Amino acid sequence: MQAWKEYQEVNKGRFLQELTELLRIPSVSARSEHKPDMQTCAKAVRTALLEAGADKATIFATDGHPIVYAEKIIDPAKPTILVYGHYDVQPADPLELWHSGPFEPVVKDGKLFARGSADDKGQVYMHVKAFETMVKTGTLACNVKFIVEGEEEIGSPNLGKFVESRAALLACDVVLISDTSMLSLDTPSIDVGLRGLTYIEVAVTGPDRDLHSGVYGGAVGNPITTLAEMIASLHDKHGRITIPGFYDDVRELPATERAELARAPFDEAAYKKDLGVKALWGEEGYSTNERTGIRPTLEVNGIWGGYTGEGAKTVLPSKAFAKISCRLVPDQGSAKITKLLIDHLHKIAPPYVTVEAHEHHGGEPYVTPVDSAAFKAASKAMETTFGKTPIPMRGGGSIPITALFERALGVKVVLLGFGLDSDNLHSPNEKFDLANFYKGIETIPYFHRFFAEMHPHG
Amino acid sequence: MQAWKEYQEVNKGRFLQELTELLRIPSVSARSEHKPDMQTCAKAVRTALLEAGADKATIFATDGHPIVYAEKIIDPAKPTILVYGHYDVQPADPLELWHSGPFEPVVKDGKLFARGSADDKGQVYMHVKAFETMVKTGTLACNVKFIVEGEEEIGSPNLGKFVESRAALLACDVVLISDTSMLSLDTPSIDVGLRGLTYIEVAVTGPDRDLHSGVYGGAVGNPITTLAEMIASLHDKHGRITIPGFYDDVRELPATERAELARAPFDEAAYKKDLGVKALWGEEGYSTNERTGIRPTLEVNGIWGGYTGEGAKTVLPSKAFAKISCRLVPDQGSAKITKLLIDHLHKIAPPYVTVEAHEHHGGEPYVTPVDSAAFKAASKAMETTFGKTPIPMRGGGSIPITALFERALGVKVVLLGFGLDSDNLHSPNEKFDLANFYKGIETIPYFHRFFAEMHPHG
Repeated sequence: MQAWKEYQEVNKGRFLQELTELLRIPSVSARSEHKPDMQTCAKAVRTALLEAGADKATIFATDGHPIVYAEKIIDPAKPTILVYGHYDVQPADPLELWHSGPFEPVVKDGKLFARGSADDKGQVYMHVKAFETMVKTGTLACNVKFIVEGEEEIGSPNLGKFVESRAALLACDVVLISDTSMLSLDTPSIDVGLRGLTYIEVAVTGPDRDLHSGVYGGAVGNPITTLAEMIASLHDKHGRITIPGFYDDVRELPATERAELARAPFDEAAYKKDLGVKALWGEEGYSTNERTGIRPTLEVNGIWGGYTGEGAKTVLPSKAFAKISCRLVPDQGSAKITKLLIDHLHKIAPPYVTVEAHEHHGGEPYVTPVDSAAFKAASKAMETTFGKTPIPMRGGGSIPITALFERALGVKVVLLGFGLDSDNLHSPNEKFDLANFYKGIETIPYFHRFFAEMHPHG
Repeated sequence: MQAWKEYQEVNKGRFLQELTELLRIPSVSARSEHKPDMQTCAKAVRTALLEAGADKATIFATDGHPIVYAEKIIDPAKPTILVYGHYDVQPADPLELWHSGPFEPVVKDGKLFARGSADDKGQVYMHVKAFETMVKTGTLACNVKFIVEGEEEIGSPNLGKFVESRAALLACDVVLISDTSMLSLDTPSIDVGLRGLTYIEVAVTGPDRDLHSGVYGGAVGNPITTLAEMIASLHDKHGRITIPGFYDDVRELPATERAELARAPFDEAAYKKDLGVKALWGEEGYSTNERTGIRPTLEVNGIWGGYTGEGAKTVLPSKAFAKISCRLVPDQGSAKITKLLIDHLHKIAPPYVTVEAHEHHGGEPYVTPVDSAAFKAASKAMETTFGKTPIPMRGGGSIPITALFERALGVKVVLLGFGLDSDNLHSPNEKFDLANFYKGIETIPYFHRFFAEMHPHG
């Protein structure tokens, strides 16, 4: 035990320095102009894995951005951990709200500010450095495989095919993912559920060209107004989604599980203050943690149409657009909800507009059983380094590929996240607390050891 | 009579060539980067007026874009016509929908395509060339003054002060404006009413930063959804505006005037086909022409918020914005409706958002009495050149300064427009039919002659 702690203590400055270099690469998967940066970043990840001690590391081309694979097989008789992460990041805009450049990492007050610091480069790097620690100190307890993709933020369009066609290469006993948050350093937690996702884009077209709002206003349906009416109709006054059939497959949690989740501390006043809002909103009959964890939601992620420039233009536009996503819970199916949503939008469109909608991407909800060896090893690892039993949580976000791994590889997924909800994921000024970064590097080797002990192979 | 027709026939090619040069100047008043173009355009208008025969022409600086003034006083005993127009144009975007460059004029099938061809450079130029014709052929019947401003498309923020402080300079017997449309070359018409305008921008703020829609979705009010709900609530299911007090001052037209307006031919099937819509929309109980002429309206001219780029971003945004305008009819007041609208938006905002709204610009509705000398002269001039009595119409658009001229100068305004509703004003591929351009140049000298005869000074 001592050997790896000492190694980490001596090398922590270098660990941070290396992560900083990785964060400088603007690997924004959603933007085609960053295609070369994606290649650069994949190569940097491959090099880091080789330097950490991987026996081999390969960059696999896909129809989109490349996937990095690496492994170190110490003994086929030992259990194998497959670490999944992603090197791509969300777009950084709005740029003007960043206090420092999104790709110019800065440490301030013990926090590392940069796009991707927490989601997910920083958390991937915890695994790389924990792996290095175990290799260099001769304490590896399991075989290790890494799969680090570059398309998580755009829905992993090529990962499914890759995983399904390379089940032998990726064969493992557990998939370990650090791409989620914990409650706080004082209150460790492990996500045992993730919501699924449906993400669509809808275009509403009225007249076939932009019109003068004075000449035609009042006589021709305005697609912005129509889109607004359609969006407004998607929730009722109780905060429930109005799409027929939307809740049909939702698994209601038994009272005992709701009570267990309610153990998580929640300070509504602090939550509101942190967000700068005077009131909260959500589905009636559920707490905030339930609204973000065990209930499905529908959010408009973007809207645009008509004149959005400086000043005033009296236009009655031809088109209006929105990006709409739903978070799904067990046992909702992403494809089914996508179809329900798109069909519903067509159905509620008035006759003076036409509606076109298409899916961006989707993913299935996922649950980790709390009685699995994988969960128990994760819980014990956190308890060892944090001194407290972590609370099992339902996370609100989606990692669409969790369900895919279970289906294709036949193993459980553990979500050992070290971020915080306040990390500004997908927002300006994303950060990762250095304390969390180092705690992750310290905790991961314990997971390897406990999993080797608890797993039937061990 | 013959002299001026001959002059126009000989010079029509040059008239078009000169207008084409004027249209090349991208005088977009709403965009600060075009400030130098506004100066260039003002100088070009001044030069054109001097070359046409003005005794003097001056560029007046304002707090915004300059105003061009010119005059030719032939006899103080004769009546004076003040021609008003504007040299500024609407922004040209969306650029990708133009078939040729918005500032690279092209003549195709007898139509001149360019931003500003109809609104309003082409129509101003009819007056410049009609004036030149009368000067060169010695047939001027009235004194002529020109005021051509550069801020009409942004609400004429500096014209009011200019007109009010220079009432002596601008003293006249009628204001003549060509900035409207007629029904068609076969069915001439004159706008006797213009709607007023209220134009505001509203910002709805939820959380103080963009959030991850997975982590916070379902628990925090989404400002896009909220803005959509607010917009949706502004009309009831009968197409009526729901803002309390909105209709209080609306002057209902007597049945006889509604019958007179109903004379205008209207082919609903052709109207729908032209716009590419399957159905129309509007306030119940009113015809399409009434909806755009004698009824007030509320339109959303632009909306934006959240992620609007390529691909998918799972953001719950901090802010959403809209540009909203109302067309007003007699006796609605612009300032009152602006206040009603802004107050209402604040009132309907739910507690989990904050609303900020400000006015862009406004203008009052206007009516030209059909028994005035000015209207009669205009009607007779059109009848002379078109062979048909023009139909008095209520135009849907707004020229906010019509009410200002009447108030500040104490005279009536005549709206002698030669555009067509199909001119794509404020849209891509704006055009002006050359037949209309030349018909305007032919008709205007008759107006001068008939006004001189009918006016008490004449």
